[in-house]
Amino acid sequence: MRVYNFAPGPAMLPGEVMEKAREEFLDYAGTGMSVVELSHRSKDYEAVVERTEALLREVMGIPDNYKVIFVQGGATMQFSAVPMNLRRNGKADYVDSGNFARLALEEARKFVDVHVAASSREDKYVHVPELDPRGFDPDADYFHFTTNNTIYGTCFPSLPDTGNVPLIADMSSNILSQPYDVTKFGLIYAGAQKNLASAGMAVVILREDLLERCSDQLPVLIDYRTYVKSKSLYNTPPSFTIYLAMLTLERLRSLGGVPAVYERNQKKARHIYEFLDRSRAFRPLADKASRSLMNVTFALPDEELNDRFVKEAAKSGLTNLKGHRVAGGMRASIYNAMPLEGAQALVEFMSDFEKKL
Amino acid sequence: MRVYNFAPGPAMLPGEVMEKAREEFLDYAGTGMSVVELSHRSKDYEAVVERTEALLREVMGIPDNYKVIFVQGGATMQFSAVPMNLRRNGKADYVDSGNFARLALEEARKFVDVHVAASSREDKYVHVPELDPRGFDPDADYFHFTTNNTIYGTCFPSLPDTGNVPLIADMSSNILSQPYDVTKFGLIYAGAQKNLASAGMAVVILREDLLERCSDQLPVLIDYRTYVKSKSLYNTPPSFTIYLAMLTLERLRSLGGVPAVYERNQKKARHIYEFLDRSRAFRPLADKASRSLMNVTFALPDEELNDRFVKEAAKSGLTNLKGHRVAGGMRASIYNAMPLEGAQALVEFMSDFEKKL
Repeated sequence: MRVYNFAPGPAMLPGEVMEKAREEFLDYAGTGMSVVELSHRSKDYEAVVERTEALLREVMGIPDNYKVIFVQGGATMQFSAVPMNLRRNGKADYVDSGNFARLALEEARKFVDVHVAASSREDKYVHVPELDPRGFDPDADYFHFTTNNTIYGTCFPSLPDTGNVPLIADMSSNILSQPYDVTKFGLIYAGAQKNLASAGMAVVILREDLLERCSDQLPVLIDYRTYVKSKSLYNTPPSFTIYLAMLTLERLRSLGGVPAVYERNQKKARHIYEFLDRSRAFRPLADKASRSLMNVTFALPDEELNDRFVKEAAKSGLTNLKGHRVAGGMRASIYNAMPLEGAQALVEFMSDFEKKL
Repeated sequence: MRVYNFAPGPAMLPGEVMEKAREEFLDYAGTGMSVVELSHRSKDYEAVVERTEALLREVMGIPDNYKVIFVQGGATMQFSAVPMNLRRNGKADYVDSGNFARLALEEARKFVDVHVAASSREDKYVHVPELDPRGFDPDADYFHFTTNNTIYGTCFPSLPDTGNVPLIADMSSNILSQPYDVTKFGLIYAGAQKNLASAGMAVVILREDLLERCSDQLPVLIDYRTYVKSKSLYNTPPSFTIYLAMLTLERLRSLGGVPAVYERNQKKARHIYEFLDRSRAFRPLADKASRSLMNVTFALPDEELNDRFVKEAAKSGLTNLKGHRVAGGMRASIYNAMPLEGAQALVEFMSDFEKKL
């Protein structure tokens, strides 16, 4: 039985994508070999990388003056790569809005002076901080924030106005889930294992003028120019992950692109939040104005009930609902691949659970 | 039709491994989800990582005072990570025995003073250089060499004696193909995409005392201690690649381990080299004493014939035989997954080709 998998990442991938990957696993496009066995220097594989980039450009509306590269190490490697590549005067603004935002800024401290431009840490991250430009450093090398906070289930409702300071976003947990105007960003990065593919990769979208900042002393696979010059084929890429991303992007396009998927995502999230708002036993954990469409955090009145809920839900085929230990309670991650039926099954189960209390 | 794929990496993987991966692609071990959809924090996935490490320790005879970690970025990331982690006095010995050996030493120059301890560059790498300890720096932080040179089809027949200087090996293209005494090495690394799994990972085996050299200023995913402390689960790992490695190692063990596979590998390589040695049209490219068991390089008298051979072989289901452009000619990569029948089919085809000349 295939379950509804509410894991925060690696996460559920679209059923059609998984079926297709399985179908051609032993013989990709008539080559007589698996896509994982294809030489990365072959025309067949180069076509996979080109197609993946072209699809991403299309669905996200990425302009020509932005480069798209596929890198290893996930978003965590970008916590280092962003300051290492983009430092100039040696100081940067960071927003402290959750666990990964915090890890990014702590890592950056190795390479630049970090100024915390906004923080909701004191409120235990139940909301995103206000992004007030008066608190920003106009001389910062860049401004870094995390669009969606996976662990706390919060999301920034709008983008900060950083003036001439390049806006850098970790978009790992909500890339492709809602429209973003790429031209507002200097650089966007996202780990693949939520809305894009399997784990082992991040996509980086960067405005080409920022490449001038890279230094020749960087490790070759940290230096963004290595990937730009080689079209992400300097060394052997994470070939299966890029291929799965291609399939996911094909499906996204066939569903009507990001605007259509955004509508579905709002519907799914709304269905769960509406239940939480009227429930007498379950309560949402994130403040209303900061609610994420991708990660819905909630809790029952005590730990014993939380545990029971998570266990019984798993038995009913609703898996991985346990919240992250630093946030407690439960979390339903409902990325693009989660069908509306999954959200409905969850609400039905919660409703039954509540009635039996 | 599944072909005999002689690609140098990504390369052919064992048929049984691919069948098994396909079989459980949509439902791993009764979890109701694919292994690529499993949370890396789940018991099921942690068991995959633990099992992969245990199998590698068993088949390579890795002692307890060595750590085994799984990292992203392939061998190329290790070209940077080795000097960044292991530098102490700031100088290191490197052997220049081929294309990747050269890339490793050029990358290292960003971080340490590189002393070329031996080189066969002037002879265009058709043999490995002699490893004479009189040419080694006894005060080097470490000594780096490449056990098997993928592009030129050469392999060191024995290990250098580096005294107290830790011996570091890039074993990407012949790990698990022949027995190596791990205790002779300070650190071994290998990209996964030849003898182990799909692309997107390297395995690093390191003697634990070397961890004392790591600095707190390293990027978190370059610092070896990050992986050691977290059992390679600091951030989301390349989960499918580790899983494929587990399957490949299970199979290797069931075949009788490295000694049994080594015997098969010798048989396969001997079959091709014996043909090359008696052929009047084909000639081997690597010197006899340096011949690789994994990559057999050869050529016909002229480029036009080389091209024709590669094209006609592909039509007969013997694919990816074109040599690397810097070496010319042809190359048959015959890693562990290539069955003896593949080597036989190749020799039969070469023999027929020759007769028609």
